[in-house]
Amino acid sequence: MKLREGPALVRGFRFSGVSAGLKTAVGAKDLGLIVAERPAAAAAVFTSNRIKAAPVLIARERIGSGRLQAVAVNSGSANCFTGKAGLRLAQRSCAAAAGEVGCRPELVAPCSTGVIGHLYDLAKYRAGVRAAARSLAADGLEEFARAILTTDTRPKMAAAEIALSGARVTIAGAAKGAGMVAPRMATLLGFLVTDAAVAAPLLNSALRRAVSKSFNAITVDGDMSTNDTALAMASGAADNPPLSPRDREAFAEALAAVTGSLARQLVYDGEGASKLVTVEVRGARGTADAERAARQIANSPLVKTAFFGCDPNVGRILAAAGASGAAFDPERIVLKVGGVTLAARGKLLTGALDEAARRMRERAFKVELGLGAGQAEFTILTADLSFDYVRINAQYTT
Amino acid sequence: MKLREGPALVRGFRFSGVSAGLKTAVGAKDLGLIVAERPAAAAAVFTSNRIKAAPVLIARERIGSGRLQAVAVNSGSANCFTGKAGLRLAQRSCAAAAGEVGCRPELVAPCSTGVIGHLYDLAKYRAGVRAAARSLAADGLEEFARAILTTDTRPKMAAAEIALSGARVTIAGAAKGAGMVAPRMATLLGFLVTDAAVAAPLLNSALRRAVSKSFNAITVDGDMSTNDTALAMASGAADNPPLSPRDREAFAEALAAVTGSLARQLVYDGEGASKLVTVEVRGARGTADAERAARQIANSPLVKTAFFGCDPNVGRILAAAGASGAAFDPERIVLKVGGVTLAARGKLLTGALDEAARRMRERAFKVELGLGAGQAEFTILTADLSFDYVRINAQYTT
Repeated sequence: MKLREGPALVRGFRFSGVSAGLKTAVGAKDLGLIVAERPAAAAAVFTSNRIKAAPVLIARERIGSGRLQAVAVNSGSANCFTGKAGLRLAQRSCAAAAGEVGCRPELVAPCSTGVIGHLYDLAKYRAGVRAAARSLAADGLEEFARAILTTDTRPKMAAAEIALSGARVTIAGAAKGAGMVAPRMATLLGFLVTDAAVAAPLLNSALRRAVSKSFNAITVDGDMSTNDTALAMASGAADNPPLSPRDREAFAEALAAVTGSLARQLVYDGEGASKLVTVEVRGARGTADAERAARQIANSPLVKTAFFGCDPNVGRILAAAGASGAAFDPERIVLKVGGVTLAARGKLLTGALDEAARRMRERAFKVELGLGAGQAEFTILTADLSFDYVRINAQYTT
Repeated sequence: MKLREGPALVRGFRFSGVSAGLKTAVGAKDLGLIVAERPAAAAAVFTSNRIKAAPVLIARERIGSGRLQAVAVNSGSANCFTGKAGLRLAQRSCAAAAGEVGCRPELVAPCSTGVIGHLYDLAKYRAGVRAAARSLAADGLEEFARAILTTDTRPKMAAAEIALSGARVTIAGAAKGAGMVAPRMATLLGFLVTDAAVAAPLLNSALRRAVSKSFNAITVDGDMSTNDTALAMASGAADNPPLSPRDREAFAEALAAVTGSLARQLVYDGEGASKLVTVEVRGARGTADAERAARQIANSPLVKTAFFGCDPNVGRILAAAGASGAAFDPERIVLKVGGVTLAARGKLLTGALDEAARRMRERAFKVELGLGAGQAEFTILTADLSFDYVRINAQYTT
């Protein structure tokens, strides 16, 4: 498998991104299209937030058929908590996209990201989607990736190539928004396209597996958006033969590699993030325990400010693990930061703190906690909590 | 009932606070004593963190008898994650205090707060506890309150007076450390003393009820310390008759009023806090749902940075509620900020945002969320997330 960051061509798909005037910044791209030559196998995973945006409600219904021909994404407004007017707006937006693209509205999935509680201007959207349809191009993934951004500082793309029974297959993706991190905005969006011929049920199971290890295993601030969506489409243009069990595994792994790369790019670009920290919890009694401890460490403001300060603060990490509800014996845990062992046999190894502090000056490092209670493990990516996080999220007022 | 912030005299108790040299800052008070004239009824609530400090393990064992004569508290070291040496140190510290005070070591409860993973100097402790015993005074509560502080900026005390069957009774308390908030330090400590004649079981149930609505209903950063302790002692010097059911209720209410006042003072003095925000969730299907939603809102970094920026950010508050797992219909929720209704009938009331932003400029305001799903409610106090929080917690390196 060849994996790289950046754009790619995927047979059977065209992409575009334009400025429709939905964002307040003049000229900023805010409307993106992905269009398949013909109806494609499709699957999606949506937010589990009790409050779901109008486009999520519509896309969730449409994905039931396992087929889509287009995805229409706007930034600048989340179209969430907007009542019946929001549902009507999302439906009319899809109808406009379908008209320009030349397919049935039921084959268009809508996605929105931006301010919660506000509608966007339908006339602007219609003009924008016409321009977007006209500028569709096989090499337009980067334009699309730019149009879906909110406070992200750069577009995020990744692509993998694999061989399935001799046929060369590409999986590419674009994503935005690390966690729910933007000012009055929301949303992690991830879009995956492949030219592989895979049926919707297989695409669905591969997507769920990929998301659980990537988009669902990162955190910037522990918040969860009302619009989170990961969506995959397969054009079948690679004309590969039906997939063998080994091919299925290879396809699922390549899809997970693409979402994994996008997830890392999301955390690297998290609001105010200056560090990319991998928190690995091992030796847990069960996966739920491992995940609980990993998430509590990765979301602790005390731990995250210590990351920002390059402080190998064993007490904060252990206190977070101890508060998580995960079962362990404090005498049996082993803690490493940046590869340096800082706690073992119930004691802090103070002589190693300086070396760990040096390793924490790197842009990326690992926190490894062995609980000594079993065999289960969980890994999560997180960022530090910096002055810039507070600045970005506090300086804008409604 | 008369309730006030500040110190008080409580018959049957003397207090002191001295500098023993356990903190690095020269001359800073770091050793405090509370001593009863004779063994007193006692009760305590301890941290549920899986990692418990040595003094917590010892105090938890000793409180089983329902009697204590003294509490010996040091700041500067949490004596946590210090193995067998830490347990020996806590035991020897109690023995030293008992020797100076003139009681059995089993009647002394130890408490520590400060850096995790380090031992303190026993010789310094012994000299300090001797000085502390010599300076015990009936009006020494403020000195004690100062000695238990870590990064708190001021001592926290409160006192209530009530009549129990004609006898005048005082309940006073001192506390430190809002949540687990201090740099490489820990610990919420709360100490309550009363001259009421109440048996240990009643004191215990009243303390648990008071803590659940005060110390356990505040959050600064959602972290939980390894040393958290709330401890109550009753000298019986008020010589009140056995308590009637109404007296018991009055006593429990007064104790809760004192812990409530201390809890508010803790959040006001939370690290970097510029706002005191009361988050009230009502109309929940059950108390667990109400608490889940309230805690998710109160701990969300996005919501807390919006508080700091005086931004009535409905989207962030609703997204946190929706992510909490609490059951509700988005169409039925009502959200008020600073008394201004901002969301109702599934819609944002944009015309009211400016007025809400003005109310948020106050030092203290309320967020009220009605879920419309039942009758249960939960209230939690929280602070904002400011530049100073990041500064305080990131600038010190190990």
